[in-house]
Amino acid sequence: MRIVVIGAGAMGSLFGGYLSRFHEVTLVGTREAHMEKIRRDGVQITEADGRTQCCRPDARVSTVGMKPADLILVQTKAPATDAALKGHREIIAPQTYVLTLQNGMGHEEVLRRYAKDEQIVIGTTKHNCSVTEPGCIRHNGSGMTYIGSLTGDTARLKFIADALTQCGLKCECCPDVRRLIYSKLLINASSSVLSGVLQVPQGFVLSDPHAWTLCTMLIRETVAVAAGEGICFDPEEKVEEVRELLQGNPGGLTSIYADLRDGRQTEVDTISGAVVAAGRKYGISTPFQQTMVELVHAMEGKACL
Amino acid sequence: MRIVVIGAGAMGSLFGGYLSRFHEVTLVGTREAHMEKIRRDGVQITEADGRTQCCRPDARVSTVGMKPADLILVQTKAPATDAALKGHREIIAPQTYVLTLQNGMGHEEVLRRYAKDEQIVIGTTKHNCSVTEPGCIRHNGSGMTYIGSLTGDTARLKFIADALTQCGLKCECCPDVRRLIYSKLLINASSSVLSGVLQVPQGFVLSDPHAWTLCTMLIRETVAVAAGEGICFDPEEKVEEVRELLQGNPGGLTSIYADLRDGRQTEVDTISGAVVAAGRKYGISTPFQQTMVELVHAMEGKACL
Repeated sequence: MRIVVIGAGAMGSLFGGYLSRFHEVTLVGTREAHMEKIRRDGVQITEADGRTQCCRPDARVSTVGMKPADLILVQTKAPATDAALKGHREIIAPQTYVLTLQNGMGHEEVLRRYAKDEQIVIGTTKHNCSVTEPGCIRHNGSGMTYIGSLTGDTARLKFIADALTQCGLKCECCPDVRRLIYSKLLINASSSVLSGVLQVPQGFVLSDPHAWTLCTMLIRETVAVAAGEGICFDPEEKVEEVRELLQGNPGGLTSIYADLRDGRQTEVDTISGAVVAAGRKYGISTPFQQTMVELVHAMEGKACL
Repeated sequence: MRIVVIGAGAMGSLFGGYLSRFHEVTLVGTREAHMEKIRRDGVQITEADGRTQCCRPDARVSTVGMKPADLILVQTKAPATDAALKGHREIIAPQTYVLTLQNGMGHEEVLRRYAKDEQIVIGTTKHNCSVTEPGCIRHNGSGMTYIGSLTGDTARLKFIADALTQCGLKCECCPDVRRLIYSKLLINASSSVLSGVLQVPQGFVLSDPHAWTLCTMLIRETVAVAAGEGICFDPEEKVEEVRELLQGNPGGLTSIYADLRDGRQTEVDTISGAVVAAGRKYGISTPFQQTMVELVHAMEGKACL
């Protein structure tokens, strides 16, 4: 398959690297120096066990003159998706599949500006990784990747799941992929966003009774919105899941924490903002999530002072 | 009159100092070194025009052996009120008036544990001041003080208003004092608390569109709660008032900002928390205020890490 991975951050580099084992992969980033380094030295992926492998996708900043891709994997930061797809729209042919495994929810709304519903694939992955230096990725955690379609027929996406699995990224098609996306969102739009707003390791969200109260309210609000969409969760069960997650890794620093600490734009619009948007669609009020969205954006604005 | 001012912070020292001109005033604080300095050197009050005066109230940490007061003015930080009144309950006789001019709302709930409704006087003041060094106060702003009763009959409080006015602290009895308390609360429970949570000068709350959105939501929520109590404000008018206040002093640092910056306990429970409590009483949901309460307490908790 001819695969283009748009976004050469940690996740883009990981997926681009793995997929390049058996496919023709081009990793597309925005900084030429970074892309040049990957062209020269490859992507160095250090696994959790310390083993390092070098993968050699092509790497470039422009897709001008490239043939349309069979599969485009969108791995940009959420706020950059629209500009990235606009810049590379020439490689999106009518038969190109466009897959997003980005954090949060609602990315399909942006993808729809550049592709038909039948071409769009949404999903969620348990992989997580970080950039240690340009071109070098630490692969901190592995797990399943699930993908699904917007149009209900997931069987036709099996070749994409197989392509990922073949390269060592276990993937399955899942008719219920939105439920899985919500499951991940329930964590990001509660404890993660709070750890960002409060600028604390995620364990504090559980150990401080006030932060934890707020966290449970954010979880319940998201559960209510999911129910509006016909996806039913037991709120108590979800609260317990988040509790266990925080107990398991109290020192964990979330990406929204790091983005705010470092004065970067966050992905809050596709995390808390996605809950607010879905709530609006289904007539469910989401004041707690709305407060998080405004606070995080205000904190981003403060960094520009 | 025999007046005891409980709380020897900025406002307590200011009122204690002024009232000592024509009354027998005892200023009661918690730190002996501080009280000793005031006994020795008096309270130095520097006015906005630079003129400094020295006032000489008595100053002590204990009220043991003192005769009951005619008037007790409570000027502690809100979280300290209960312990202070408990510690000095012997000077509260059945005929003693207990006046709170503390920031926020709902202080009467604590006062009720130590005095009957007829003895309790609530109020609000436009004076503001800060401590420059122990025993030295800068009197930054002056204005009216309004007081009122819980039982509706304000005329009988005229002698208290007169006593304050006589000493240079212009004061009137106001049958509608709760409305005035809400007016001040509308600022504290919106822009002030946000400037604390975001750790920014108050002007940022207006200049940042996201902070301002949240600020207007907090104002509207408080207006709705006030209406539940039969106190009607035009929300648009109140939004404009806060806008003008912030425009007038964009660099202003609120006390909740300073408390959080310095790792002190804040008065959020009698500010945003008072709106939540009143909302609960009148069946009005206050999720935005509730979020502020939990966030501020979580930030206090973070300071103890």
